[in-house]
Amino acid sequence: MRVVKVPLGDRTYSILIGEGLLARLGMECRRLKLGRRCALITDANVAPLFAAAAEESLSAAGFESLRITVPAGETAKRLRTVQACYDQLAAHRLERKSFVVALGGGVVGDLAGFVAATYLRGLAFVQVPTTLLAQVDSSVGGKVGVNLKAGKNLVGAFYQPKLVLCDLGTLRTLPQREFRAGLAEVVKYGVIYDAALFRRLERNMEKLVGLDPATLTAVVARCCQIKAEVVGQDETESGLRAILNFGHTIGHAIENSVGYGKYLHGEAIAIGQTAAAELSRHLLGLPERDVIRIGNLLCAAGLPNRIRLTAAQTTRLFEAMKLDKKVSGGEIKFVLARRIGEVLWGQKVPAELLDRVLGRSEAHAP
Amino acid sequence: MRVVKVPLGDRTYSILIGEGLLARLGMECRRLKLGRRCALITDANVAPLFAAAAEESLSAAGFESLRITVPAGETAKRLRTVQACYDQLAAHRLERKSFVVALGGGVVGDLAGFVAATYLRGLAFVQVPTTLLAQVDSSVGGKVGVNLKAGKNLVGAFYQPKLVLCDLGTLRTLPQREFRAGLAEVVKYGVIYDAALFRRLERNMEKLVGLDPATLTAVVARCCQIKAEVVGQDETESGLRAILNFGHTIGHAIENSVGYGKYLHGEAIAIGQTAAAELSRHLLGLPERDVIRIGNLLCAAGLPNRIRLTAAQTTRLFEAMKLDKKVSGGEIKFVLARRIGEVLWGQKVPAELLDRVLGRSEAHAP
Repeated sequence: MRVVKVPLGDRTYSILIGEGLLARLGMECRRLKLGRRCALITDANVAPLFAAAAEESLSAAGFESLRITVPAGETAKRLRTVQACYDQLAAHRLERKSFVVALGGGVVGDLAGFVAATYLRGLAFVQVPTTLLAQVDSSVGGKVGVNLKAGKNLVGAFYQPKLVLCDLGTLRTLPQREFRAGLAEVVKYGVIYDAALFRRLERNMEKLVGLDPATLTAVVARCCQIKAEVVGQDETESGLRAILNFGHTIGHAIENSVGYGKYLHGEAIAIGQTAAAELSRHLLGLPERDVIRIGNLLCAAGLPNRIRLTAAQTTRLFEAMKLDKKVSGGEIKFVLARRIGEVLWGQKVPAELLDRVLGRSEAHAP
Repeated sequence: MRVVKVPLGDRTYSILIGEGLLARLGMECRRLKLGRRCALITDANVAPLFAAAAEESLSAAGFESLRITVPAGETAKRLRTVQACYDQLAAHRLERKSFVVALGGGVVGDLAGFVAATYLRGLAFVQVPTTLLAQVDSSVGGKVGVNLKAGKNLVGAFYQPKLVLCDLGTLRTLPQREFRAGLAEVVKYGVIYDAALFRRLERNMEKLVGLDPATLTAVVARCCQIKAEVVGQDETESGLRAILNFGHTIGHAIENSVGYGKYLHGEAIAIGQTAAAELSRHLLGLPERDVIRIGNLLCAAGLPNRIRLTAAQTTRLFEAMKLDKKVSGGEIKFVLARRIGEVLWGQKVPAELLDRVLGRSEAHAP
């Protein structure tokens, strides 16, 4: 088992990474000195796979858990589902010292985290991410929230978990497409922070896709460590933390304008990273060779890296981008790369360049 | 103008108290270095009285404000209204640097504060309380939130404003009943923290009810100062802050079990304080003379201090109390007084005593 600390003063917490950790959930929660009752929030896909094991572990450690199963998929990540969770917490008399365990992917973690952040003004919260995306990204760092019709993650909070428990065994049941989508965030860590990780991924992508245990452990742990370092320096995204959004401004807009559900988050982010790499070449002199390497690595991970849009879709894409949380003074700011392993945030992009990179598909082929 | 600081490290803020401050709203916001756009959240009662003045002041200081008017009354304080606010913020493209101004009573402040706390993971927030209750209590200290069907304030956050601006002039348009309800919290500060304030209220209740400017300024400022001192020592209610709940466990339960809307919050809290004083006499030896003084002062403020309940209502009252946020390990904890000016929190009350004090009306006459 690997342990990564997220250093946040009195809100410091650990990420545990390894095989078979689900069986230790109850024991690890007991160390946190939480109340006796908890809500296990999971979704309809994950519940049949892991909820019983989680409950057994919690129960063996003396906890009493209430299972709340939400529908699977991004559409569950909305206020109506939050309301349904609140109603169950109230009906089962959860108290201030009770806690919430999120068992599932990013949607479950974000939703359950928001419920935990806001019920009785905040219950303790434990993340048990069961997808690669959630393990390397969404479960770490305390961003929780839900979507509005107007856009993704427009409602939420910064609310840190007390513990993140990444059981790599849960990835074996993950559909290939979901696993590959998670690799988009893994590649991102290489681009924004760690050229050595990027090279390791170039060498070992096949092993990683094959779930080779040693490779998987090392890569997940390194990604968590990078995220922990970044979040530890800038919890609420007033500066550095913005680098985690490489590829996300365009990625989110693709998700929004093409409609929730057509692309997985990781797939949209892969397309966004390819476009951001292309913008970086124009604006920060990212070598073309590196643009190609980024495209190739995403391709090796089995991810899409281009999108063809009609004029109408491009217009909708731009509209969606204007709603992005990173907009300031009406201007959209981008994270762009100077080289692999080094990015700058807060970069302005001329509208005509953006239009060229996004609007005409030949411009952003790798 | 009086200024009270709420000392919370990098979240320290000021409460400004005086006549005619609404006209200074824009100027005071400008000092805070906020973004150009804001949402002015108010209700249908307050909007015709003060919204134009607030907007004028904001506009003169260079801000662009979006007015959001919610229905008046406690029933607006729910997730559906929160959702409607979010949708308007999204439609008008508020950004991370935008801010929210709450103009109104406790309901508006709690609701708008929750919207501010959760939209884009947190916008800056300015409170302009226009009721006595909001000025001395709910606008200070960062508790924001909404009700669920299952109970009051079950959903929320600790989220501090950047500024609280108490224009005492707004109290002149407040219905007498609302003003008197606010006095329940004023009396509470005397009981829990400041015997001299309590005596001053005994001497000056008539002047206070008559809105005598000097008395009003001094009393509102002293109440804000007490709340600031308490909150400064215990922002998230892990200890001392609980004393602010004197009379509230029973008061909230009365509001819930008798149904929202029959009693104003302050009226329910007045009844709760009378009952808590009676419990204090039995359990902490609060002198009977002080029980009577508390009852008399609430009476002089024109507040109810007793309630007659049927057996069925008593049962519902107890059910409602079990949902209180202060419940821990299934036990309801009370704030009780040793003497006027000194209370203890976390006090257990035997069920049969509670039953006697609440269930039989003769037991809790002052």
